[in-house]
Amino acid sequence: MADSRFALTELDDLPVDLRERVGAIAEKSGFVPNIFRALGHRPAELRAFLDYHDALMDRSDGLSKAERELVVVATSGANHCTYCVVAHGAILRIRARDPQLADRVATNPWQVELDERGRAIVDLALALTREPELFGEAEVARARSAGLTEDEIWDVGSITALFAASNRLAHLTALRPNPEFYQLGRS
Amino acid sequence: MADSRFALTELDDLPVDLRERVGAIAEKSGFVPNIFRALGHRPAELRAFLDYHDALMDRSDGLSKAERELVVVATSGANHCTYCVVAHGAILRIRARDPQLADRVATNPWQVELDERGRAIVDLALALTREPELFGEAEVARARSAGLTEDEIWDVGSITALFAASNRLAHLTALRPNPEFYQLGRS
Amino acid sequence: MADSRFALTELDDLPVDLRERVGAIAEKSGFVPNIFRALGHRPAELRAFLDYHDALMDRSDGLSKAERELVVVATSGANHCTYCVVAHGAILRIRARDPQLADRVATNPWQVELDERGRAIVDLALALTREPELFGEAEVARARSAGLTEDEIWDVGSITALFAASNRLAHLTALRPNPEFYQLGRS
Amino acid sequence: MADSRFALTELDDLPVDLRERVGAIAEKSGFVPNIFRALGHRPAELRAFLDYHDALMDRSDGLSKAERELVVVATSGANHCTYCVVAHGAILRIRARDPQLADRVATNPWQVELDERGRAIVDLALALTREPELFGEAEVARARSAGLTEDEIWDVGSITALFAASNRLAHLTALRPNPEFYQLGRS
Amino acid sequence: MADSRFALTELDDLPVDLRERVGAIAEKSGFVPNIFRALGHRPAELRAFLDYHDALMDRSDGLSKAERELVVVATSGANHCTYCVVAHGAILRIRARDPQLADRVATNPWQVELDERGRAIVDLALALTREPELFGEAEVARARSAGLTEDEIWDVGSITALFAASNRLAHLTALRPNPEFYQLGRS
Amino acid sequence: MADSRFALTELDDLPVDLRERVGAIAEKSGFVPNIFRALGHRPAELRAFLDYHDALMDRSDGLSKAERELVVVATSGANHCTYCVVAHGAILRIRARDPQLADRVATNPWQVELDERGRAIVDLALALTREPELFGEAEVARARSAGLTEDEIWDVGSITALFAASNRLAHLTALRPNPEFYQLGRS
Repeated sequence: MADSRFALTELDDLPVDLRERVGAIAEKSGFVPNIFRALGHRPAELRAFLDYHDALMDRSDGLSKAERELVVVATSGANHCTYCVVAHGAILRIRARDPQLADRVATNPWQVELDERGRAIVDLALALTREPELFGEAEVARARSAGLTEDEIWDVGSITALFAASNRLAHLTALRPNPEFYQLGRS
Repeated sequence: MADSRFALTELDDLPVDLRERVGAIAEKSGFVPNIFRALGHRPAELRAFLDYHDALMDRSDGLSKAERELVVVATSGANHCTYCVVAHGAILRIRARDPQLADRVATNPWQVELDERGRAIVDLALALTREPELFGEAEVARARSAGLTEDEIWDVGSITALFAASNRLAHLTALRPNPEFYQLGRS
Repeated sequence: MADSRFALTELDDLPVDLRERVGAIAEKSGFVPNIFRALGHRPAELRAFLDYHDALMDRSDGLSKAERELVVVATSGANHCTYCVVAHGAILRIRARDPQLADRVATNPWQVELDERGRAIVDLALALTREPELFGEAEVARARSAGLTEDEIWDVGSITALFAASNRLAHLTALRPNPEFYQLGRS
Repeated sequence: MADSRFALTELDDLPVDLRERVGAIAEKSGFVPNIFRALGHRPAELRAFLDYHDALMDRSDGLSKAERELVVVATSGANHCTYCVVAHGAILRIRARDPQLADRVATNPWQVELDERGRAIVDLALALTREPELFGEAEVARARSAGLTEDEIWDVGSITALFAASNRLAHLTALRPNPEFYQLGRS
Repeated sequence: MADSRFALTELDDLPVDLRERVGAIAEKSGFVPNIFRALGHRPAELRAFLDYHDALMDRSDGLSKAERELVVVATSGANHCTYCVVAHGAILRIRARDPQLADRVATNPWQVELDERGRAIVDLALALTREPELFGEAEVARARSAGLTEDEIWDVGSITALFAASNRLAHLTALRPNPEFYQLGRS
Repeated sequence: MADSRFALTELDDLPVDLRERVGAIAEKSGFVPNIFRALGHRPAELRAFLDYHDALMDRSDGLSKAERELVVVATSGANHCTYCVVAHGAILRIRARDPQLADRVATNPWQVELDERGRAIVDLALALTREPELFGEAEVARARSAGLTEDEIWDVGSITALFAASNRLAHLTALRPNPEFYQLGRS
């Protein structure tokens, strides 16, 4: 049972800029998340993926870090993406300082109990996830009336879009979560 | 009827690197494709999007340029993405030198008549598009037995993933295709 | 790549009444639409099909000619019917004097921008198209409150029904659109 | 609880040709099937509907009468069409001289036990019913290898198409089955 | 064509308590319903099934007997369960003293005409049947505002749950309805 | 945020037989699983539920205990049932002595890597879960050819059926998992 259906690239075999960038993440986590090993044989794609990720997930205004992860876990749950649910479930546990929320969000994002703002964020994200052709003015209006700003609506939509891609890369590669992710943030 | 549900950014208001990059496309096409105006208010996201796009769509080995567009039009058709179908339909007409293929692919990608290699490419892409959780070893095996290399399988999967994101950005923004796209490559 | 999966009947081999009737259409269009060649080996069915079509599409009161084609293109798009989308897309472009509307309607009928009456017509048609068992009093009430008369509601429903049949005949026969349709009404 | 959501037309108010034609059916059955009362306010449509129906259902070669009704009941069951299931269920009971078959076919056409030819007929019909965009060469090849001729395949496909329309007319009108149908052919 | 895909157990071969219990039903009906013959080889399961059934279907307060059968027929229709539709359709005909209602409910539970209370019962049941992950506070609130008590809501939900199991046992065993059921309560 | 949408019954308020039975479970686990508190106000239903559960889950021959839990977690994942996924995920971790398997099974049961027997068990269970009307001889034949006995096929089917009920009870009650379940068996 390999970690990916395709060839993996180890940290030392990445171009120097990516080695530094992924190395910093690895140092912080204590391991190299498998997604980087799986995308590493295509440095230009990995670089663009990291740039897109950082532009959306490290933004300081609008949604909180925990809310950004909420979008990721909800849409990855709806897409049945094991790597993203396990890896970002761990990050959500840490960001939200809640050891149980992520499992509930991932298993049933449609009905998980959330406060009004959280529900509006997840509903907006879900509306773009599985049948995006039905997404329209009504969904945006509901988000606005729950108090989301235009900028926050953009964030929810764009994170949903990025992880629509990310989920599919994980499905494409049959990517396995690193064992460490399962236990992070549980206690 | 605006071109996007959110604020648009005109060429002159983009950061200089993006102004040059998008400007070059505009010069070649004769117009600024609306996707760049729609993403322009988030330069870091637009830059990452362009980088990811170029890494996958301008690659010289493996799939031909026309085959890459075939993936885009088939999956955007399955996702009912008007902007992507109209814009990339135009590019497919030009790349494939076929004024009719794009409309047939976009309308019914599941049954459009293609040669064996084209069918294998489109089947692989469709398997990741709407129910990616069902994608597995069987789909990859079928692609291999139609002669696709590992590198080509990766390309099909990654382009499908990128346009899963791109389609959703267009749904999020209710993005309208530029009028010029409808007619390009038809004669 | 044949025009139909089954035997085709040329104009000269049709019974005299159908030869005249289809001949008149061919004279006006400059070509014999493939649907008539595909159904021609069953003259009684072709005759009934033409009668039903004319009873609904050539009616002078209620819906305009363009609105009738709007129903056809929206439901054929939802059914992914290549022949009907390409052929009736051309007619819609001509009837609505709009070179872009048809592609937008066919690609995403659920969210294409339309005025209130157009939206009510398309919503009613879509409600009968893919999950007709859910069609009920609520859908009819919405159409009425958008100002559609009983007669217009009937027209929308019956045209939707006829093209539910027509789409399936095109799927059955793998019917290819005549090349002329792709370009009609685009300039 | 009216028999139709729209105005009904009684036998005496039909144009003379339809009065005779529907009258003959009424005489044979002992009642006027509600579909004719529901369509009667649009004589041209009723006439075309009857012509199409007779061309397909009264054909003497190829499929047997019972097999034609099998297609109707299977596809109407898949479409949850109450009028068609109850009315044509009665006819199937009579044509197949089997008081139980129709209820089994209508409730679960995908798995009802049938002989090989019956299964091939129903599978072909179902493939065109709910997701006709997936219908292709594979479905036709399976029908051929079960021994169906081109003419029989056409019949199955065309009857499926006609009742895709007919089911939707019944959904449009919330058509109620005549009470007599429920009991016909049960003993 | 066997009555079940697995071994059947006849009345005389059941443990004594089940022989008495099923025997009493058989005496009343005039035949042994096939579900008991199909489950009989697992006495502990049959006993629990009967206990659960009786706890829910023979309760004297809250929903009427006919309303309990309405839930069974509606959800079994939505699940295309032939045994349950035919067997409980018979019971519904008898309990509701209506020879036609059951066929209408089973064929299209979503749109069958019912009074407000009946509609609320069936809507609640359907919301739990096919996509139970979407069931939430909104569905419960609608049931309450139609006048259902907490106890009645529980009954509808629990009967739906029990027959979600029962339908699947019938699908698992390809269970055939006893011939007697088809005709019961029709005159 | 209550543990159930309906009234809860504490251990001390259960009838004596249930108090002993649930008490024994509570003693072993260290807490009263919420499902028993949620069903407790209907003792006859809780008793039947426990009997059915024990008849299937405590059986000594055929499927192993871990395999029985595999069926529960896979089908509860497909049904997005938070309580069942979290509670039985814990039991599967313990029974299979694997801290990661349950999360992978629950998130994507269709593609989780399993050995041939495990895959056959899960495929059989999934075939009965969401579209049970399509379950037929082909699914049973595949299970047989992977070496499952008739008795094991029955177990898989019956456990799937029981948890189709159980999942819906949890959806009905918006049942929350006890906090202890999240962490059990993870180290």
